[in-house]
Amino acid sequence: MNQLAILGPGLLGGSLALAVRARAPQCRIAVWARREAAVAEARRICDLASTDLADAVRGADVVVLCVPIGAMAELAERIAPLVEPGALVTDVGSVKAPVVEALAPLFERAGRGRFVGSHPMAGSEQAGLSAAHADLFEGSVALLTPHPGADPAAVEAAAALWRLVGCKIHSLSPAEHDEAIGLVSHLPHLIAASLVNFVCAQDPRAADFCGNGLRDTTRIASGLPEMWTEILATNRAVLGGQLQAFIARLQEISRDLASGNDSLLKTFLTNAKVRRDRHIQRRS
Amino acid sequence: MNQLAILGPGLLGGSLALAVRARAPQCRIAVWARREAAVAEARRICDLASTDLADAVRGADVVVLCVPIGAMAELAERIAPLVEPGALVTDVGSVKAPVVEALAPLFERAGRGRFVGSHPMAGSEQAGLSAAHADLFEGSVALLTPHPGADPAAVEAAAALWRLVGCKIHSLSPAEHDEAIGLVSHLPHLIAASLVNFVCAQDPRAADFCGNGLRDTTRIASGLPEMWTEILATNRAVLGGQLQAFIARLQEISRDLASGNDSLLKTFLTNAKVRRDRHIQRRS
Repeated sequence: MNQLAILGPGLLGGSLALAVRARAPQCRIAVWARREAAVAEARRICDLASTDLADAVRGADVVVLCVPIGAMAELAERIAPLVEPGALVTDVGSVKAPVVEALAPLFERAGRGRFVGSHPMAGSEQAGLSAAHADLFEGSVALLTPHPGADPAAVEAAAALWRLVGCKIHSLSPAEHDEAIGLVSHLPHLIAASLVNFVCAQDPRAADFCGNGLRDTTRIASGLPEMWTEILATNRAVLGGQLQAFIARLQEISRDLASGNDSLLKTFLTNAKVRRDRHIQRRS
Repeated sequence: MNQLAILGPGLLGGSLALAVRARAPQCRIAVWARREAAVAEARRICDLASTDLADAVRGADVVVLCVPIGAMAELAERIAPLVEPGALVTDVGSVKAPVVEALAPLFERAGRGRFVGSHPMAGSEQAGLSAAHADLFEGSVALLTPHPGADPAAVEAAAALWRLVGCKIHSLSPAEHDEAIGLVSHLPHLIAASLVNFVCAQDPRAADFCGNGLRDTTRIASGLPEMWTEILATNRAVLGGQLQAFIARLQEISRDLASGNDSLLKTFLTNAKVRRDRHIQRRS
Protein backbone atom coordinates (compact mmCIF):
# COMPACT_ATOMS: atom_id res chain seq x y z
CA MET A 1 0.00 0.00 0.00
CA ASN A 2 1.54 3.26 -1.17
CA GLN A 3 -1.35 5.64 -0.82
CA LEU A 4 -4.47 5.30 1.30
CA ALA A 5 -7.61 7.39 0.90
CA ILE A 6 -9.93 7.51 3.89
CA LEU A 7 -13.37 8.94 3.18
CA GLY A 8 -14.90 10.14 6.44
CA PRO A 9 -12.59 10.89 9.38
CA GLY A 10 -14.84 9.76 12.24
CA LEU A 11 -13.89 7.29 14.98
CA LEU A 12 -13.10 4.49 12.52
CA GLY A 13 -11.63 6.56 9.69
CA GLY A 14 -9.56 8.66 12.07
CA SER A 15 -8.30 5.62 13.94
CA LEU A 16 -7.41 3.92 10.64
CA ALA A 17 -5.33 6.95 9.62
CA LEU A 18 -3.53 7.01 12.97
CA ALA A 19 -2.98 3.24 12.93
CA VAL A 20 -1.55 3.19 9.37
CA ARG A 21 0.63 6.19 10.08
CA ALA A 22 2.08 4.42 13.14
CA ARG A 23 2.61 1.06 11.40
CA ALA A 24 3.43 2.06 7.81
CA PRO A 25 4.91 5.57 7.98
CA GLN A 26 5.93 5.47 4.30
CA CYS A 27 2.29 5.21 3.19
CA ARG A 28 0.77 8.50 2.05
CA ILE A 29 -2.63 9.15 3.63
CA ALA A 30 -5.36 11.35 2.14
CA VAL A 31 -8.60 12.12 3.95
CA TRP A 32 -11.87 13.36 2.52
CA ALA A 33 -14.50 14.97 4.71
CA ARG A 34 -17.80 16.60 3.80
CA ARG A 35 -17.38 19.65 5.99
CA GLU A 36 -14.54 22.19 5.97
CA ALA A 37 -14.32 22.05 9.76
CA ALA A 38 -13.76 18.29 9.64
CA VAL A 39 -11.11 18.75 6.94
CA ALA A 40 -9.29 21.26 9.12
CA GLU A 41 -9.41 18.88 12.06
CA ALA A 42 -8.24 15.95 9.92
CA ARG A 43 -5.08 17.74 8.73
CA ARG A 44 -3.20 16.62 11.85
CA ILE A 45 -3.67 12.93 11.03
CA CYS A 46 -2.86 12.80 7.30
CA ASP A 47 -0.78 14.17 4.43
CA LEU A 48 -3.69 15.67 2.51
CA ALA A 49 -7.19 16.57 3.64
CA SER A 50 -9.85 17.90 1.30
CA THR A 51 -13.56 18.29 0.67
CA ASP A 52 -12.80 17.35 -2.94
CA LEU A 53 -13.27 13.65 -3.59
CA ALA A 54 -11.10 13.66 -6.72
CA ASP A 55 -8.20 15.13 -4.72
CA ALA A 56 -8.59 12.51 -2.02
CA VAL A 57 -8.77 9.37 -4.18
CA ARG A 58 -6.32 10.39 -6.93
CA GLY A 59 -3.36 7.99 -6.93
CA ALA A 60 -4.68 5.94 -3.99
CA ASP A 61 -4.24 2.17 -4.28
CA VAL A 62 -6.54 1.65 -1.30
CA VAL A 63 -9.77 3.61 -0.72
CA VAL A 64 -11.80 3.06 2.47
CA LEU A 65 -15.35 4.39 2.88
CA CYS A 66 -15.75 5.26 6.57
CA VAL A 67 -19.08 7.09 6.37
CA PRO A 68 -22.39 6.07 7.97
CA ILE A 69 -24.21 3.20 6.25
CA GLY A 70 -26.89 5.50 4.89
CA ALA A 71 -24.31 7.63 3.06
CA MET A 72 -22.34 4.75 1.46
CA ALA A 73 -24.22 4.33 -1.82
CA GLU A 74 -24.23 8.00 -2.77
CA LEU A 75 -20.56 8.38 -1.91
CA ALA A 76 -19.69 5.26 -3.92
CA GLU A 77 -21.54 6.64 -6.96
CA ARG A 78 -19.53 9.82 -6.73
CA ILE A 79 -16.12 8.13 -6.46
CA ALA A 80 -16.69 5.29 -8.96
CA PRO A 81 -15.61 7.48 -11.93
CA LEU A 82 -12.67 8.90 -9.92
CA VAL A 83 -10.78 6.03 -8.28
CA GLU A 84 -7.73 4.42 -9.88
CA PRO A 85 -8.76 1.44 -12.04
CA GLY A 86 -6.83 -1.09 -9.93
CA ALA A 87 -7.56 0.43 -6.51
CA LEU A 88 -9.01 -1.69 -3.73
CA VAL A 89 -12.21 -0.03 -2.55
CA THR A 90 -13.61 -1.20 0.77
CA ASP A 91 -15.87 0.08 3.53
CA VAL A 92 -16.40 -0.31 7.26
CA GLY A 93 -20.19 -0.69 7.36
CA SER A 94 -21.70 -2.93 10.04
CA VAL A 95 -24.28 -4.38 7.65
CA LYS A 96 -22.93 -6.03 4.53
CA ALA A 97 -25.43 -7.65 2.15
CA PRO A 98 -27.30 -4.43 1.24
CA VAL A 99 -24.05 -2.42 1.11
CA VAL A 100 -22.22 -4.94 -1.06
CA GLU A 101 -25.23 -5.32 -3.35
CA ALA A 102 -25.39 -1.56 -3.83
CA LEU A 103 -21.66 -0.81 -4.10
CA ALA A 104 -20.00 -3.68 -5.95
CA PRO A 105 -21.95 -3.15 -9.24
CA LEU A 106 -21.14 0.57 -9.25
CA PHE A 107 -17.42 -0.08 -9.51
CA GLU A 108 -17.88 -3.00 -11.92
CA ARG A 109 -19.91 -0.80 -14.23
CA ALA A 110 -17.42 2.06 -13.98
CA GLY A 111 -14.57 -0.35 -14.73
CA ARG A 112 -12.63 1.37 -11.96
CA GLY A 113 -11.91 0.13 -8.42
CA ARG A 114 -12.19 -3.41 -7.15
CA PHE A 115 -14.73 -3.53 -4.33
CA VAL A 116 -14.62 -5.87 -1.31
CA GLY A 117 -16.80 -5.29 1.72
CA SER A 118 -15.18 -5.34 5.13
CA HIS A 119 -16.27 -4.79 8.70
CA PRO A 120 -13.63 -4.15 11.35
CA MET A 121 -15.30 -5.08 14.64
CA ALA A 122 -13.99 -2.14 16.60
CA GLY A 123 -15.54 0.99 17.97
CA SER A 124 -17.17 2.16 21.13
CA GLU A 125 -20.11 4.25 22.24
CA GLN A 126 -17.76 7.20 21.79
CA ALA A 127 -17.75 8.75 18.33
CA GLY A 128 -15.85 11.22 16.17
CA LEU A 129 -12.24 11.98 15.38
CA SER A 130 -11.61 13.17 18.93
CA ALA A 131 -12.15 9.60 20.16
CA ALA A 132 -9.88 8.07 17.48
CA HIS A 133 -6.66 6.34 18.45
CA ALA A 134 -3.97 4.31 16.72
CA ASP A 135 -4.71 1.10 18.64
CA LEU A 136 -8.48 0.96 18.13
CA PHE A 137 -8.25 -2.08 15.85
CA GLU A 138 -5.48 -3.90 17.74
CA GLY A 139 -6.63 -7.44 18.61
CA SER A 140 -10.10 -7.05 17.12
CA VAL A 141 -11.62 -9.07 14.30
CA ALA A 142 -12.05 -7.74 10.77
CA LEU A 143 -14.69 -9.58 8.79
CA LEU A 144 -14.21 -9.66 5.02
CA THR A 145 -17.31 -10.33 2.96
CA PRO A 146 -16.25 -11.09 -0.61
CA HIS A 147 -19.22 -11.40 -2.96
CA PRO A 148 -19.27 -14.00 -5.77
CA GLY A 149 -17.61 -11.64 -8.27
CA ALA A 150 -14.97 -10.25 -5.92
CA ASP A 151 -11.38 -10.13 -7.18
CA PRO A 152 -9.18 -12.48 -5.07
CA ALA A 153 -6.29 -10.01 -5.21
CA ALA A 154 -8.57 -7.27 -3.85
CA VAL A 155 -9.68 -9.62 -1.05
CA GLU A 156 -6.03 -10.19 -0.19
CA ALA A 157 -5.35 -6.44 -0.26
CA ALA A 158 -8.25 -5.82 2.13
CA ALA A 159 -6.97 -8.56 4.44
CA ALA A 160 -3.50 -6.97 4.37
CA LEU A 161 -4.93 -3.55 5.27
CA TRP A 162 -6.76 -4.78 8.36
CA ARG A 163 -3.96 -7.13 9.35
CA LEU A 164 -1.58 -4.14 9.23
CA VAL A 165 -3.61 -2.28 11.86
CA GLY A 166 -3.80 -5.30 14.19
CA CYS A 167 -6.96 -7.17 13.19
CA LYS A 168 -7.48 -10.88 12.91
CA ILE A 169 -9.21 -11.73 9.64
CA HIS A 170 -12.28 -13.89 9.02
CA SER A 171 -14.08 -14.26 5.70
CA LEU A 172 -17.74 -15.00 5.24
CA SER A 173 -20.46 -14.18 2.74
CA PRO A 174 -22.34 -10.86 3.09
CA ALA A 175 -25.52 -12.73 4.11
CA GLU A 176 -23.68 -14.89 6.67
CA HIS A 177 -22.11 -11.72 8.04
CA ASP A 178 -25.46 -10.02 8.56
CA GLU A 179 -26.88 -13.06 10.36
CA ALA A 180 -23.84 -13.37 12.64
CA ILE A 181 -23.51 -9.65 13.38
CA GLY A 182 -27.27 -9.40 13.85
CA LEU A 183 -26.84 -11.90 16.66
CA VAL A 184 -23.73 -10.53 18.36
CA SER A 185 -24.23 -6.80 17.79
CA HIS A 186 -27.55 -5.59 16.40
CA LEU A 187 -29.89 -7.72 18.53
CA PRO A 188 -27.92 -6.95 21.73
CA HIS A 189 -28.10 -3.25 20.86
CA LEU A 190 -31.86 -3.42 20.42
CA ILE A 191 -32.23 -5.36 23.68
CA ALA A 192 -29.98 -2.99 25.65
CA ALA A 193 -31.94 0.04 24.41
CA SER A 194 -35.22 -1.75 25.20
CA LEU A 195 -34.02 -2.47 28.71
CA VAL A 196 -33.09 1.16 29.35
CA ASN A 197 -36.43 2.41 28.08
CA PHE A 198 -38.37 -0.25 29.97
CA VAL A 199 -36.64 0.27 33.32
CA CYS A 200 -36.77 4.06 33.16
CA ALA A 201 -40.41 4.10 32.05
CA GLN A 202 -41.52 1.62 34.73
CA ASP A 203 -39.78 3.34 37.60
CA PRO A 204 -37.47 6.30 36.89
CA ARG A 205 -36.30 6.19 40.51
CA ALA A 206 -35.19 2.59 40.17
CA ALA A 207 -32.19 3.63 38.10
CA ASP A 208 -30.88 5.40 41.22
CA PHE A 209 -30.39 1.98 42.73
CA CYS A 210 -28.66 0.37 39.82
CA GLY A 211 -25.24 -1.14 40.23
CA ASN A 212 -22.58 -1.93 37.65
CA GLY A 213 -24.76 -4.76 36.33
CA LEU A 214 -27.32 -2.57 34.58
CA ARG A 215 -24.63 -0.05 33.70
CA ASP A 216 -22.63 -2.65 31.73
CA THR A 217 -25.67 -4.45 30.35
CA THR A 218 -26.90 -1.23 28.74
CA ARG A 219 -23.60 0.46 27.82
CA ILE A 220 -24.10 0.07 24.08
CA ALA A 221 -27.45 1.87 24.32
CA SER A 222 -25.44 5.10 24.71
CA GLY A 223 -24.28 4.76 21.09
CA LEU A 224 -25.25 7.36 18.48
CA PRO A 225 -28.99 7.07 17.71
CA GLU A 226 -28.60 8.28 14.10
CA MET A 227 -25.87 5.76 13.32
CA TRP A 228 -27.67 2.86 14.99
CA THR A 229 -31.00 3.69 13.38
CA GLU A 230 -29.32 3.28 9.99
CA ILE A 231 -27.56 0.07 11.02
CA LEU A 232 -30.64 -1.60 12.51
CA ALA A 233 -32.87 -0.43 9.65
CA THR A 234 -30.40 -1.69 7.03
CA ASN A 235 -30.36 -5.13 8.66
CA ARG A 236 -34.12 -4.99 9.29
CA ALA A 237 -35.07 -8.28 7.62
CA VAL A 238 -32.48 -10.38 9.46
CA LEU A 239 -32.86 -8.56 12.77
CA GLY A 240 -36.67 -8.78 12.72
CA GLY A 241 -36.50 -12.57 12.49
CA GLN A 242 -33.89 -12.79 15.23
CA LEU A 243 -35.94 -10.55 17.52
CA GLN A 244 -39.04 -12.72 17.00
CA ALA A 245 -37.02 -15.88 17.77
CA PHE A 246 -35.58 -14.21 20.86
CA ILE A 247 -39.04 -13.19 22.08
CA ALA A 248 -40.18 -16.81 21.64
CA ARG A 249 -37.25 -17.95 23.82
CA LEU A 250 -38.14 -15.35 26.47
CA GLN A 251 -41.69 -16.74 26.51
CA GLU A 252 -40.28 -20.20 27.23
CA ILE A 253 -38.11 -18.81 30.01
CA SER A 254 -41.14 -16.99 31.40
CA ARG A 255 -43.02 -20.29 31.51
CA ASP A 256 -40.08 -22.07 33.14
CA LEU A 257 -39.86 -19.32 35.78
CA ALA A 258 -43.58 -19.49 36.50
CA SER A 259 -43.56 -23.31 36.67
CA GLY A 260 -41.80 -23.26 40.02
CA ASN A 261 -39.42 -25.96 38.81
CA ASP A 262 -36.20 -24.23 39.76
CA SER A 263 -34.02 -26.90 38.19
CA LEU A 264 -35.10 -25.50 34.80
CA LEU A 265 -33.95 -22.05 35.90
CA LYS A 266 -30.67 -23.41 37.22
CA THR A 267 -29.94 -25.30 33.98
CA PHE A 268 -30.71 -22.16 31.99
CA LEU A 269 -28.35 -20.02 34.13
CA THR A 270 -25.64 -22.70 34.17
CA ASN A 271 -25.74 -23.00 30.38
CA ALA A 272 -25.45 -19.22 30.08
CA LYS A 273 -22.47 -19.04 32.42
CA VAL A 274 -20.62 -21.94 30.76
CA ARG A 275 -21.27 -20.59 27.27
CA ARG A 276 -20.31 -17.04 28.14
CA ASP A 277 -17.14 -18.05 29.98
CA ARG A 278 -16.16 -20.26 27.04
CA HIS A 279 -17.22 -18.26 23.99
CA ILE A 280 -17.72 -14.63 24.93
CA GLN A 281 -15.61 -13.74 27.96
CA ARG A 282 -12.19 -14.28 26.41
CA ARG A 283 -10.82 -11.41 24.36
CA SER A 284 -10.78 -12.56 20.75
CA MET B 1 -20.65 -0.97 67.17
CA ASN B 2 -18.38 -2.87 69.54
CA GLN B 3 -18.65 -6.36 68.19
CA LEU B 4 -19.74 -7.51 64.75
CA ALA B 5 -20.73 -11.07 63.86
CA ILE B 6 -20.59 -11.96 60.18
CA LEU B 7 -22.31 -15.20 59.26
CA GLY B 8 -20.92 -16.45 55.96
CA PRO B 9 -17.50 -15.16 54.81
CA GLY B 10 -18.14 -15.03 51.04
CA LEU B 11 -17.57 -12.01 48.79
CA LEU B 12 -19.96 -9.77 50.76
CA GLY B 13 -19.26 -11.11 54.25
CA GLY B 14 -15.51 -11.14 53.69
CA SER B 15 -15.52 -7.64 52.23
CA LEU B 16 -17.63 -6.40 55.15
CA ALA B 17 -15.08 -7.79 57.62
CA LEU B 18 -12.19 -6.15 55.74
CA ALA B 19 -14.07 -2.85 55.38
CA VAL B 20 -14.99 -2.64 59.09
CA ARG B 21 -11.51 -3.65 60.15
CA ALA B 22 -10.06 -0.83 58.01
CA ARG B 23 -12.56 1.81 59.13
CA ALA B 24 -13.29 0.83 62.76
CA PRO B 25 -10.23 -1.06 63.97
CA GLN B 26 -11.50 -1.09 67.57
CA CYS B 27 -14.53 -3.18 66.58
CA ARG B 28 -14.17 -6.89 67.37
CA ILE B 29 -15.14 -9.07 64.41
CA ALA B 30 -16.35 -12.68 64.67
CA VAL B 31 -17.04 -14.83 61.62
CA TRP B 32 -19.12 -17.99 61.38
CA ALA B 33 -18.73 -20.38 58.47
CA ARG B 34 -20.35 -23.75 57.85
CA ARG B 35 -17.17 -25.52 56.77
CA GLU B 36 -13.91 -25.91 58.71
CA ALA B 37 -11.92 -24.96 55.61
CA ALA B 38 -13.82 -21.68 55.31
CA VAL B 39 -13.25 -21.00 59.02
CA ALA B 40 -9.52 -21.54 58.57
CA GLU B 41 -9.47 -19.18 55.62
CA ALA B 42 -11.54 -16.55 57.48
CA ARG B 43 -9.10 -16.37 60.42
CA ARG B 44 -6.95 -13.82 58.55
CA ILE B 45 -9.81 -11.31 58.34
CA CYS B 46 -11.28 -11.41 61.87
CA ASP B 47 -10.65 -11.83 65.60
CA LEU B 48 -12.59 -15.06 65.99
CA ALA B 49 -13.71 -17.59 63.40
CA SER B 50 -15.80 -20.63 64.25
CA THR B 51 -18.26 -23.21 62.94
CA ASP B 52 -20.16 -22.70 66.21
CA LEU B 53 -22.96 -20.12 65.85
CA ALA B 54 -23.16 -19.48 69.61
CA ASP B 55 -19.45 -18.59 69.66
CA ALA B 56 -19.84 -16.23 66.73
CA VAL B 57 -22.89 -14.24 67.90
CA ARG B 58 -22.14 -14.15 71.63
CA GLY B 59 -21.66 -10.52 72.72
CA ALA B 60 -22.21 -9.11 69.21
CA ASP B 61 -24.26 -5.93 68.99
CA VAL B 62 -24.50 -6.30 65.22
CA VAL B 63 -25.12 -9.61 63.43
CA VAL B 64 -25.09 -9.77 59.62
CA LEU B 65 -26.36 -12.78 57.70
CA CYS B 66 -24.23 -13.05 54.55
CA VAL B 67 -25.37 -16.46 53.34
CA PRO B 68 -27.26 -17.27 50.11
CA ILE B 69 -30.95 -16.34 50.11
CA GLY B 70 -32.01 -19.99 50.30
CA ALA B 71 -30.06 -20.51 53.54
CA MET B 72 -31.30 -17.39 55.36
CA ALA B 73 -34.41 -18.75 57.09
CA GLU B 74 -32.77 -21.85 58.54
CA LEU B 75 -29.79 -19.86 59.77
CA ALA B 76 -32.07 -17.25 61.36
CA GLU B 77 -33.99 -19.99 63.19
CA ARG B 78 -30.76 -21.30 64.62
CA ILE B 79 -29.43 -17.94 65.82
CA ALA B 80 -32.72 -16.47 67.14
CA PRO B 81 -32.26 -18.12 70.56
CA LEU B 82 -28.55 -17.20 70.63
CA VAL B 83 -28.20 -13.51 69.73
CA GLU B 84 -28.01 -10.76 72.34
CA PRO B 85 -31.50 -9.38 73.08
CA GLY B 86 -30.67 -5.87 71.85
CA ALA B 87 -28.50 -6.88 68.87
CA LEU B 88 -29.24 -5.53 65.42
CA VAL B 89 -29.72 -8.47 63.07
CA THR B 90 -29.59 -7.75 59.36
CA ASP B 91 -28.87 -9.56 56.11
CA VAL B 92 -27.52 -8.87 52.62
CA GLY B 93 -30.10 -10.74 50.55
CA SER B 94 -30.97 -9.33 47.11
CA VAL B 95 -34.68 -10.12 47.54
CA LYS B 96 -36.38 -8.60 50.54
CA ALA B 97 -40.12 -9.21 50.96
CA PRO B 98 -39.90 -13.02 51.36
CA VAL B 99 -36.73 -12.75 53.48
CA VAL B 100 -38.14 -10.08 55.81
CA GLU B 101 -41.44 -11.97 56.12
CA ALA B 102 -39.59 -15.12 57.11
CA LEU B 103 -36.94 -13.62 59.39
CA ALA B 104 -38.51 -10.72 61.28
CA PRO B 105 -41.09 -12.86 63.15
CA LEU B 106 -38.43 -15.36 64.25
CA PHE B 107 -36.58 -12.72 66.24
CA GLU B 108 -39.79 -11.12 67.51
CA ARG B 109 -40.99 -14.48 68.82
CA ALA B 110 -37.61 -15.26 70.40
CA GLY B 111 -37.58 -11.83 72.07
CA ARG B 112 -33.95 -11.58 71.04
CA GLY B 113 -32.42 -9.53 68.20
CA ARG B 114 -34.00 -6.62 66.33
CA PHE B 115 -34.26 -7.47 62.66
CA VAL B 116 -34.00 -5.01 59.76
CA GLY B 117 -33.51 -6.17 56.19
CA SER B 118 -30.77 -4.56 54.13
CA HIS B 119 -29.31 -4.95 50.69
CA PRO B 120 -25.92 -3.46 49.94
CA MET B 121 -25.84 -3.07 46.14
CA ALA B 122 -22.30 -4.29 45.69
CA GLY B 123 -20.76 -7.41 44.30
CA SER B 124 -19.49 -8.71 41.03
CA GLU B 125 -19.58 -11.86 38.97
CA GLN B 126 -16.60 -12.96 41.09
CA ALA B 127 -17.45 -14.82 44.27
CA GLY B 128 -15.92 -16.06 47.50
CA LEU B 129 -13.60 -14.72 50.16
CA SER B 130 -10.68 -14.65 47.71
CA ALA B 131 -12.47 -11.89 45.75
CA ALA B 132 -13.30 -9.87 48.89
CA HIS B 133 -11.76 -6.45 49.42
CA ALA B 134 -12.11 -3.58 51.90
CA ASP B 135 -13.50 -1.11 49.31
CA LEU B 136 -16.22 -3.28 47.79
CA PHE B 137 -19.01 -1.14 49.29
CA GLU B 138 -17.34 2.25 48.79
CA GLY B 139 -19.65 4.55 46.83
CA SER B 140 -22.41 1.97 46.38
CA VAL B 141 -25.98 2.16 47.58
CA ALA B 142 -27.28 0.20 50.58
CA LEU B 143 -31.04 -0.23 50.57
CA LEU B 144 -32.71 -0.57 53.96
CA THR B 145 -36.11 -2.23 53.97
CA PRO B 146 -37.69 -1.66 57.38
CA HIS B 147 -40.97 -3.59 57.79
CA PRO B 148 -43.95 -2.06 59.67
CA GLY B 149 -42.80 -3.45 63.04
CA ALA B 150 -39.11 -2.59 62.65
CA ASP B 151 -37.39 -0.85 65.59
CA PRO B 152 -36.30 2.68 64.53
CA ALA B 153 -33.10 2.38 66.57
CA ALA B 154 -32.27 -0.85 64.74
CA VAL B 155 -32.91 0.88 61.40
CA GLU B 156 -30.49 3.61 62.43
CA ALA B 157 -27.91 1.01 63.51
CA ALA B 158 -28.19 -0.71 60.14
CA ALA B 159 -27.76 2.63 58.35
CA ALA B 160 -24.69 3.37 60.48
CA LEU B 161 -23.16 -0.01 59.60
CA TRP B 162 -23.46 0.48 55.83
CA ARG B 163 -22.53 4.15 56.02
CA LEU B 164 -19.36 3.13 57.88
CA VAL B 165 -18.21 0.97 54.97
CA GLY B 166 -18.89 3.68 52.39
CA CYS B 167 -22.50 3.17 51.27
CA LYS B 168 -25.13 5.75 50.56
CA ILE B 169 -28.40 4.83 52.26
CA HIS B 170 -31.90 4.63 50.83
CA SER B 171 -34.95 3.27 52.64
CA LEU B 172 -37.96 1.65 51.00
CA SER B 173 -40.46 -1.04 51.85
CA PRO B 174 -39.54 -4.68 51.19
CA ALA B 175 -42.13 -4.87 48.38
CA GLU B 176 -40.93 -1.63 46.78
CA HIS B 177 -37.40 -2.97 46.98
CA ASP B 178 -38.27 -6.17 45.15
CA GLU B 179 -40.00 -4.24 42.35
CA ALA B 180 -37.10 -1.81 41.94
CA ILE B 181 -34.36 -4.44 42.14
CA GLY B 182 -36.34 -6.74 39.88
CA LEU B 183 -36.09 -3.99 37.28
CA VAL B 184 -32.47 -2.95 37.69
CA SER B 185 -30.89 -6.29 38.59
CA HIS B 186 -33.01 -9.45 38.26
CA LEU B 187 -34.63 -8.72 34.89
CA PRO B 188 -31.31 -7.59 33.34
CA HIS B 189 -29.72 -10.80 34.65
CA LEU B 190 -32.42 -12.94 33.07
CA ILE B 191 -32.13 -11.03 29.79
CA ALA B 192 -28.32 -11.23 29.72
CA ALA B 193 -28.43 -14.99 30.30
CA SER B 194 -31.14 -15.35 27.64
CA LEU B 195 -29.01 -13.43 25.17
CA VAL B 196 -25.97 -15.66 25.77
CA ASN B 197 -28.02 -18.81 25.35
CA PHE B 198 -29.84 -17.49 22.30
CA VAL B 199 -26.73 -16.30 20.46
CA CYS B 200 -24.69 -19.41 21.23
CA ALA B 201 -27.54 -21.77 20.31
CA GLN B 202 -28.33 -19.96 17.05
CA ASP B 203 -24.75 -19.80 15.84
CA PRO B 204 -21.95 -20.94 18.15
CA ARG B 205 -19.40 -19.53 15.70
CA ALA B 206 -20.97 -16.06 15.89
CA ALA B 207 -19.53 -15.52 19.35
CA ASP B 208 -16.08 -15.60 17.73
CA PHE B 209 -16.96 -12.32 16.07
CA CYS B 210 -18.31 -10.57 19.11
CA GLY B 211 -16.81 -7.30 20.24
CA ASN B 212 -16.90 -5.59 23.60
CA GLY B 213 -20.59 -4.85 23.09
CA LEU B 214 -21.84 -8.39 23.64
CA ARG B 215 -19.12 -8.98 26.23
CA ASP B 216 -20.37 -6.12 28.43
CA THR B 217 -24.04 -6.71 27.71
CA THR B 218 -23.76 -10.27 29.02
CA ARG B 219 -21.15 -9.87 31.78
CA ILE B 220 -23.60 -10.52 34.60
CA ALA B 221 -24.56 -13.86 33.02
CA SER B 222 -21.21 -15.17 34.30
CA GLY B 223 -22.52 -14.89 37.88
CA LEU B 224 -22.94 -17.99 40.04
CA PRO B 225 -25.87 -20.06 38.72
CA GLU B 226 -26.77 -21.47 42.17
CA MET B 227 -26.91 -18.04 43.78
CA TRP B 228 -28.86 -16.47 40.92
CA THR B 229 -31.33 -19.35 40.72
CA GLU B 230 -32.22 -18.67 44.36
CA ILE B 231 -32.46 -14.93 43.82
CA LEU B 232 -34.62 -15.11 40.69
CA ALA B 233 -36.80 -17.86 42.16
CA THR B 234 -37.32 -15.91 45.39
CA ASN B 235 -38.46 -12.85 43.43
CA ARG B 236 -40.44 -15.03 40.99
CA ALA B 237 -43.81 -13.28 41.32
CA VAL B 238 -42.45 -9.78 40.73
CA LEU B 239 -39.95 -10.84 38.07
CA GLY B 240 -42.49 -12.88 36.13
CA GLY B 241 -44.73 -9.82 35.74
CA GLN B 242 -41.81 -7.64 34.71
CA LEU B 243 -40.64 -10.19 32.14
CA GLN B 244 -44.13 -10.35 30.60
CA ALA B 245 -44.30 -6.56 30.41
CA PHE B 246 -40.83 -6.46 28.85
CA ILE B 247 -41.82 -9.07 26.25
CA ALA B 248 -44.86 -6.93 25.38
CA ARG B 249 -42.55 -3.95 24.84
CA LEU B 250 -40.26 -6.03 22.62
CA GLN B 251 -43.29 -6.98 20.52
CA GLU B 252 -44.05 -3.29 20.02
CA ILE B 253 -40.44 -2.63 19.02
CA SER B 254 -40.60 -5.58 16.64
CA ARG B 255 -43.68 -4.04 14.99
CA ASP B 256 -41.99 -0.62 14.80
CA LEU B 257 -38.92 -2.19 13.19
CA ALA B 258 -41.01 -4.10 10.65
CA SER B 259 -43.13 -1.02 9.81
CA GLY B 260 -40.26 0.56 7.91
CA ASN B 261 -40.96 3.88 9.66
CA ASP B 262 -37.43 4.56 10.81
CA SER B 263 -38.39 7.68 12.75
CA LEU B 264 -39.99 5.29 15.31
CA LEU B 265 -36.69 3.43 15.60
CA LYS B 266 -34.74 6.66 15.93
CA THR B 267 -37.04 7.99 18.66
CA PHE B 268 -36.69 4.69 20.51
CA LEU B 269 -32.87 4.76 20.31
CA THR B 270 -32.70 8.47 21.18
CA ASN B 271 -34.87 7.96 24.26
CA ALA B 272 -32.63 5.09 25.35
CA LYS B 273 -29.45 7.10 24.95
CA VAL B 274 -30.83 10.16 26.76
CA ARG B 275 -32.23 8.08 29.61
CA ARG B 276 -29.11 5.98 30.00
CA ASP B 277 -26.76 8.97 29.90
CA ARG B 278 -28.93 10.77 32.47
CA HIS B 279 -29.99 8.00 34.86
CA ILE B 280 -27.72 5.00 34.47
CA GLN B 281 -24.32 6.08 33.18
CA ARG B 282 -23.27 8.23 36.11
CA ARG B 283 -21.80 6.42 39.09
CA SER B 284 -24.32 6.62 41.88
